Amino acid sequence: MPINIKDVLEAKKHLEGVARVTTLRHSLEVSRRLGCEVYLKMENEQKTGSFKIRGAYNNIRSLTAGQRNQGLIACSAGNHAQGMASSATALNAKAIIVMPESSPLVKVQATRSYGAEVVLYGNIYDDCYAKAQEIMKEKGYVFVHPFNDPMTIAGQGTVALEVLDLLPDLESIVVPIGGGGLISGIATVIKALNPKCKVYGVQSDTTPAMADMFHKRLSKTPLRYSALADGIAVKKAEPNMYEDYISKLVDDIVVVSDNEIAEAIVLLLERSKSVVEGSGAASLAAILSGKLKLGKKSVAVLSGGNIDLNSVAKVIERGLISKGRKAEISVVFHDAPGSLSHLTQVLAREGANILQVVHNRMDLDIALREARIEFQIETFNHEHLEKIKKALHDIGARVIS
Amino acid sequence: MPINIKDVLEAKKHLEGVARVTTLRHSLEVSRRLGCEVYLKMENEQKTGSFKIRGAYNNIRSLTAGQRNQGLIACSAGNHAQGMASSATALNAKAIIVMPESSPLVKVQATRSYGAEVVLYGNIYDDCYAKAQEIMKEKGYVFVHPFNDPMTIAGQGTVALEVLDLLPDLESIVVPIGGGGLISGIATVIKALNPKCKVYGVQSDTTPAMADMFHKRLSKTPLRYSALADGIAVKKAEPNMYEDYISKLVDDIVVVSDNEIAEAIVLLLERSKSVVEGSGAASLAAILSGKLKLGKKSVAVLSGGNIDLNSVAKVIERGLISKGRKAEISVVFHDAPGSLSHLTQVLAREGANILQVVHNRMDLDIALREARIEFQIETFNHEHLEKIKKALHDIGARVIS
Repeated sequence: MPINIKDVLEAKKHLEGVARVTTLRHSLEVSRRLGCEVYLKMENEQKTGSFKIRGAYNNIRSLTAGQRNQGLIACSAGNHAQGMASSATALNAKAIIVMPESSPLVKVQATRSYGAEVVLYGNIYDDCYAKAQEIMKEKGYVFVHPFNDPMTIAGQGTVALEVLDLLPDLESIVVPIGGGGLISGIATVIKALNPKCKVYGVQSDTTPAMADMFHKRLSKTPLRYSALADGIAVKKAEPNMYEDYISKLVDDIVVVSDNEIAEAIVLLLERSKSVVEGSGAASLAAILSGKLKLGKKSVAVLSGGNIDLNSVAKVIERGLISKGRKAEISVVFHDAPGSLSHLTQVLAREGANILQVVHNRMDLDIALREARIEFQIETFNHEHLEKIKKALHDIGARVIS
Repeated sequence: MPINIKDVLEAKKHLEGVARVTTLRHSLEVSRRLGCEVYLKMENEQKTGSFKIRGAYNNIRSLTAGQRNQGLIACSAGNHAQGMASSATALNAKAIIVMPESSPLVKVQATRSYGAEVVLYGNIYDDCYAKAQEIMKEKGYVFVHPFNDPMTIAGQGTVALEVLDLLPDLESIVVPIGGGGLISGIATVIKALNPKCKVYGVQSDTTPAMADMFHKRLSKTPLRYSALADGIAVKKAEPNMYEDYISKLVDDIVVVSDNEIAEAIVLLLERSKSVVEGSGAASLAAILSGKLKLGKKSVAVLSGGNIDLNSVAKVIERGLISKGRKAEISVVFHDAPGSLSHLTQVLAREGANILQVVHNRMDLDIALREARIEFQIETFNHEHLEKIKKALHDIGARVIS
């Protein structure tokens, strides 16, 4: 039987002092772009770095002391692992988490530091799930599901109670969907307390299983794997999540691309000074896409902030390139002493900062006494880049790209 | 005459609905490391991205309507510019801001987007100051000082009122010092309401003018310029800021290096999911240095978040290298077909992700039939890197670095 609002209110009581009441922040920049008031629910500030601690803790505290003493088992690539580990330790239960062997070391270390035992197994979530089931049967542990469990869903729903406390007249809320636990909890609360408010789901276009089920279309195959939206990369949609919650309570589900997610991450870094992981920024990406009817007041649930710094650096790099603040210029110029000095003088005069230079004489497409030189440079914007290219052209260099 | 607590309480009234009451966030990670409770005052979340709007608005609103109609002028490399521009627009005053020609385009654009006229002039703050004075005299504008003005200082002091509201029994507060406006306002409040609480200042070791004045030592010359701590890069300490406030109200001033600041920025990105600029992270760097007696409860004022994304990417890069998550390996190996394949097989087997390869045969230090190959790789940690070097050594490659 699906949960109802009472289950979420009950969860809220138990989460007091355990999960943080995260900030709901008005975004001037996004509101200006969209022409309505947009607020960000900062679950990236949550303990363990994502909303998952809400559901995990509520689930574990609902178990009997006997069950907790048996030991708990879960499988997760990241956020549920940390939420589980932290909650189990807080409730004096032993937790074993099966994580993919490819998990970023930081996430494995964080999970261990919260007090759980980590078993590394397989490549993807599905492998871990199978392994966790196997260990569960062998050792008699209790399985704590990351999303498909009423107590987990009730815990996640507390996000919506906090939002409605501050914005009772909310007209839409946008929520990332992996397995669907977060949106099911949130939609249960919203449709009970403010039924006119639209509830929108967002998936990555690389793993759109629930979106496909919702729109009754065949899944595209093969599914690609998005490293950026790893937190919502769930390959199979659970039919009961669809039947019990999503088909009944969700108004629409849209998909976003990795590029759209990357742009949302960059906007959050620059404007909101916040680090948000790809799956968390998907909701803002959906809002920015203009595909959703938001009404006068909308909330994007930024579900977590557990993104590897390496990925942050890569996303910034892409963002800088797309804004014309970093570029590669390839020029052909005569191959003689002083040539590079001549070119670099031009770049210096135009205010371009050189990051890297590659000199190439072995390209058969260029004349014998020419060389191809590739510059990686920092620029101000697209206009600046065009100005630099023109200046290079003016001294006789052939600008290839 | 120096300001007193009443001036700050008055400023607070005027700032209601103008400046945000920013979050005071408990940091589990820093508290664990330091063995006391450490809180972060998130002025990076402030409107315009830094605390500067508090002082600028309080200053401008204290002017007469006649003065506001004359037009306002200021000079700033970034944060005061944005605070001024936003406040002047809110109070229907015209603002002209002189900024260095080298200012990041994003800061110039942001200042213009808040409604100010920007004049680009000279290279450093001092040039801009001179130019602003010149324009002021010529046009009859009113100069709004970024720090050396009672109304500016009173505005900045409101940060401390918000902190004491939540932590009345605070035992220390750590504040970055550029010109000294922020710490003067904060110290005025702290010493009036909780005189036992220590007030510590932090400067960059590249521009330690106020620290040197405080410790009565000669300034080191020449001053270097820290691009990372640009927000607190003030070359000359104003004697009256020292006399009226800092010598009387501040307990100690320490300096931190760019490396310490970079580590603090990385910690804030990874653990607090927050983007903080170098001068803002200096306070946390000072806390992490272990040089300060913090007592049981301490607050680091993270004064702003206006850091260029390019700098964020560079800081992350340095952080990854220092943690052994990114590395350059240089090896000498025999120069024959199949060699690179052999080396890359080893890297693949050890789980290192190759980012870049440079092949060098022209180094006279290596034998005729050898080549030097430089790999830029992603690794898990320092142990992983050592394991990779050993595996390369085991197939006969000479690992140079």
